[in-house]
Amino acid sequence: MTSQIRGVIPPLAIPLKDGELDVASLERHINRLIAAGLHGLFVSGSTGEVAFSTTERRAQIQREVVRIVDGRVPLLVGVIDTETERVLDNIRAVEAVGGAAGVVATAPFYALGGETEIERHLRILAESTDLELWAYDIPVCVHTKLSPDLLLRLGRDGVLAGVKDSSGDDVSFRWLARANEAAGRPLRLLTGHEVVVDGAYMSGADGSVPGLANVDPEGYVRQWQAYERRDWEAVRTEQDRLADLMRIVQVKGVQGFGAGVGAFKTALHLLGVFDSSEMPRPVGALEGDNVEHVASVLRTVGLLS
Amino acid sequence: MTSQIRGVIPPLAIPLKDGELDVASLERHINRLIAAGLHGLFVSGSTGEVAFSTTERRAQIQREVVRIVDGRVPLLVGVIDTETERVLDNIRAVEAVGGAAGVVATAPFYALGGETEIERHLRILAESTDLELWAYDIPVCVHTKLSPDLLLRLGRDGVLAGVKDSSGDDVSFRWLARANEAAGRPLRLLTGHEVVVDGAYMSGADGSVPGLANVDPEGYVRQWQAYERRDWEAVRTEQDRLADLMRIVQVKGVQGFGAGVGAFKTALHLLGVFDSSEMPRPVGALEGDNVEHVASVLRTVGLLS
Amino acid sequence: MTSQIRGVIPPLAIPLKDGELDVASLERHINRLIAAGLHGLFVSGSTGEVAFSTTERRAQIQREVVRIVDGRVPLLVGVIDTETERVLDNIRAVEAVGGAAGVVATAPFYALGGETEIERHLRILAESTDLELWAYDIPVCVHTKLSPDLLLRLGRDGVLAGVKDSSGDDVSFRWLARANEAAGRPLRLLTGHEVVVDGAYMSGADGSVPGLANVDPEGYVRQWQAYERRDWEAVRTEQDRLADLMRIVQVKGVQGFGAGVGAFKTALHLLGVFDSSEMPRPVGALEGDNVEHVASVLRTVGLLS
Amino acid sequence: MTSQIRGVIPPLAIPLKDGELDVASLERHINRLIAAGLHGLFVSGSTGEVAFSTTERRAQIQREVVRIVDGRVPLLVGVIDTETERVLDNIRAVEAVGGAAGVVATAPFYALGGETEIERHLRILAESTDLELWAYDIPVCVHTKLSPDLLLRLGRDGVLAGVKDSSGDDVSFRWLARANEAAGRPLRLLTGHEVVVDGAYMSGADGSVPGLANVDPEGYVRQWQAYERRDWEAVRTEQDRLADLMRIVQVKGVQGFGAGVGAFKTALHLLGVFDSSEMPRPVGALEGDNVEHVASVLRTVGLLS
Repeated sequence: MTSQIRGVIPPLAIPLKDGELDVASLERHINRLIAAGLHGLFVSGSTGEVAFSTTERRAQIQREVVRIVDGRVPLLVGVIDTETERVLDNIRAVEAVGGAAGVVATAPFYALGGETEIERHLRILAESTDLELWAYDIPVCVHTKLSPDLLLRLGRDGVLAGVKDSSGDDVSFRWLARANEAAGRPLRLLTGHEVVVDGAYMSGADGSVPGLANVDPEGYVRQWQAYERRDWEAVRTEQDRLADLMRIVQVKGVQGFGAGVGAFKTALHLLGVFDSSEMPRPVGALEGDNVEHVASVLRTVGLLS
Repeated sequence: MTSQIRGVIPPLAIPLKDGELDVASLERHINRLIAAGLHGLFVSGSTGEVAFSTTERRAQIQREVVRIVDGRVPLLVGVIDTETERVLDNIRAVEAVGGAAGVVATAPFYALGGETEIERHLRILAESTDLELWAYDIPVCVHTKLSPDLLLRLGRDGVLAGVKDSSGDDVSFRWLARANEAAGRPLRLLTGHEVVVDGAYMSGADGSVPGLANVDPEGYVRQWQAYERRDWEAVRTEQDRLADLMRIVQVKGVQGFGAGVGAFKTALHLLGVFDSSEMPRPVGALEGDNVEHVASVLRTVGLLS
Repeated sequence: MTSQIRGVIPPLAIPLKDGELDVASLERHINRLIAAGLHGLFVSGSTGEVAFSTTERRAQIQREVVRIVDGRVPLLVGVIDTETERVLDNIRAVEAVGGAAGVVATAPFYALGGETEIERHLRILAESTDLELWAYDIPVCVHTKLSPDLLLRLGRDGVLAGVKDSSGDDVSFRWLARANEAAGRPLRLLTGHEVVVDGAYMSGADGSVPGLANVDPEGYVRQWQAYERRDWEAVRTEQDRLADLMRIVQVKGVQGFGAGVGAFKTALHLLGVFDSSEMPRPVGALEGDNVEHVASVLRTVGLLS
Repeated sequence: MTSQIRGVIPPLAIPLKDGELDVASLERHINRLIAAGLHGLFVSGSTGEVAFSTTERRAQIQREVVRIVDGRVPLLVGVIDTETERVLDNIRAVEAVGGAAGVVATAPFYALGGETEIERHLRILAESTDLELWAYDIPVCVHTKLSPDLLLRLGRDGVLAGVKDSSGDDVSFRWLARANEAAGRPLRLLTGHEVVVDGAYMSGADGSVPGLANVDPEGYVRQWQAYERRDWEAVRTEQDRLADLMRIVQVKGVQGFGAGVGAFKTALHLLGVFDSSEMPRPVGALEGDNVEHVASVLRTVGLLS
């Protein structure tokens, strides 16, 4: 019953052209990722602009990804929305398109509540579908931290298949990993923090969901392989390089999504994978010195000549 | 060009029965509000469970409200969603149903950004519709405060018709009111803080959007009328009574929406307006001692015998 | 047993010269405040740079203020420090200097705790002294909000004589005022929010502690007198003017204490009350355009020609 | 010029008896730590109840520690206070007692400011003393995060000898470590997060300041030795054990310092090192089930039979 998903599962960045999905770039991007040896894809995550995509656009993205991937790697699909009924609608939409191994949901957001409501929310979602349910712990977006106790309880009860941890709370992650270990590992634990994946592997993570793997999939795959053979010096050396690469997000005058995903798309454009670095409205693409900054970092780590 | 909306505009609480909209209770509720002399209704606000309602449910609520109100008071309708394209879809849905004077949007949420993105967001929304656009300043839900400078600039430019302020920042509200006054009052300013509406009226607010007016519409109408004739002692005496009534939300073991809107629905059920105090999933209705607490407060202020 | 302190009690701004207390400016400043009719002084508050003053400096300031005031108005003195034993040392120092009607303490800060620790802290302080103990509710500095329930309980038990509320939470303040009223008014309630004192008076405040009264004491005294005779239109008109004056703090490139107290000192220097606008290390005085901004606001409201 | 301090440097927990320093327990405690092979001590840190200690008590603690340690390991001493002049007083007091290799200061707290003030603050401190100046990055107490850029600049300029990072931001720590490496390692970087020291070692930390090392010094020393010989499997296995031990802090009904340091003292009392688990006022010692919880965890990891 344990999920088969482990390894490096990037949250897929989405190429746009004039506000539309750029399918040609998407195809190039996915094929490059799979060629690099990635173990799965997370579609419609935060990086995958789930918050910016209409219901139709989410379905279109899933459809195209399923077609392009064609079963080569498993897919997780984000069903992120404010509250239960809206997430249920999203789950039904994901099922209608088909091709997903699991869905990924956050704690409810916008309306405030407590852990009781979060637990009910996740239990209702799990009961509604045969797909794996993954919890997405991302307080920077939903302003609630999922507690290790809650996650483990839901893992033991078969509600959750796994957790994508983007909480930035490595102490909590370690305790969750320890408790999961003691309980027979009902949960798959993936980290979303691309700069310190090595620390998460030390904690016993089952893999990573690094946004930066959109830019350098080989690096994260090499790191995973080193982890699999317990070559920790290789794990950390690779991480140092990837931490240096992550400096592409340190742009000026732009914050949050526009800086982070903006830098990923700019890098993919500079690398010739995306035809454009276009961002979803109301966010602007990086410009001028910020593009030069991204290029400079890419050159420093040897990805651009 | 100035909006005609002023006075007391409650955010409509929504009666449910077995997960469905309870139209009979809704009809009773709206007719009671209008009979009390309220000046408009805010449909699908935070209190109006916008975050819990699917796209279909939002349209159904709007349809029924428009039918019941039948033009007796103007309607604002919430189009709250994470980012621009999703809000645009919501605006088109509100237009399709018809009957609204304006739509109400928040800053983008879930994905982080800065003021540049918020400004673009609101400008794009305004360009897409002939309905009035109102800004909803509710950092407790969207985790960004709209700055007075931004709001005034958008008011002057005709982007915004008004602001519903639920920021809890009365200093900022005063400065916004002063700047709006100096600019010839392009914006209508409504406060959402039912416990200190008198302070907002001192600041020059054009009205209020008190969730508690679902429970005691007459109180807020009397207060507004006293304000209109500058009878400040009556304004504050009424406010003291309403502040005491607001203690219905001080329940135990429940937080946020479940406590606040839970208490409103419980009170409306106790008052015989709603057939039930049912809450949208995953939130539970208040129970046991918490119901007794609400009843006790209602008795203290003379609403229940 | 109720405190005699009510009315306008400004937190005294402190003139410096080459890092030393500028006694001549202090004398001019205090005499101007008392001439304007203020009802007391709060020495060594946040505005009064308590956080920047060594133990010796705090005693020196208190000594000079006591000498200059010479019993004309009552004094509250801040004993602000991280935890109980340190505050007790400060209380003993205030008693040693003499001349204070009461001491003002915050919740413990730096080390985290809960309400249990805050309650014990305040009870220990009260038992140690015959001076009035005032609670200073200032979460922006100590990162804990004092709950109305706790404050009222400590008022009823004779632990606290009053509260200086700088919490920015006007809903909580209203509830505290209502509960205090119902309990026979054991607490004196003063607001620290100079921009919305009128709202606090609507809530039943016993006075205000406006930093801005250092700059325009007459305005706050006129407002208090209007409140005493329930001339609410005068209360709010005066508040509008003071809200406009408070724009002196809206400077560029400086945040927090440096902006707020920096603007007060700059204004007092421009008005000829302080010989300099010097700030305590490591904070710099306002310069260039920021000084011009302060002057411009002073001219707009008619304090500078 | 690089600091000689590296390895495991615990923040010394302080035994109390009837509110006084329990010198006999302190002697036992320090000798046990040094016997375990620890590489230095951090006196008057957050764990070392700096916020609860009067000026006299801080000096007394330093005096006794210096006497007991007698030069066997180097000492860092906390000079934590709200703003510059107060910290300077503390530095002079530390110098007067003597025996310290360096002093440890945080960003200013209580009064708000920006990075400009923090930088000035640290530069003024460094100019005032020949002791090493260490920055203590602890936003949970001072509510400001020290940026990697600032820290590195101050390291390069010889202002700072090192950083104790208790920020919980492992991404920022990695970037700081990378930048420090590129700059020739002017800074010593120690982590304060006892549950994930292995991750910090992966990032290239020069050591750790684990509060939990008060309880199990041998574990942290073994981990450091494994790190020194790059035996990463041993590093992480030891960390897993220490993460399990850290569960002593997961007590009920107590928060923050009372839970964390309360658990350390309770464990030291159970282990026979401290004569009592007494806490500084206003904090209470752990009681009843919480003591049993601590004992149970100690037994689970084999420290108690």
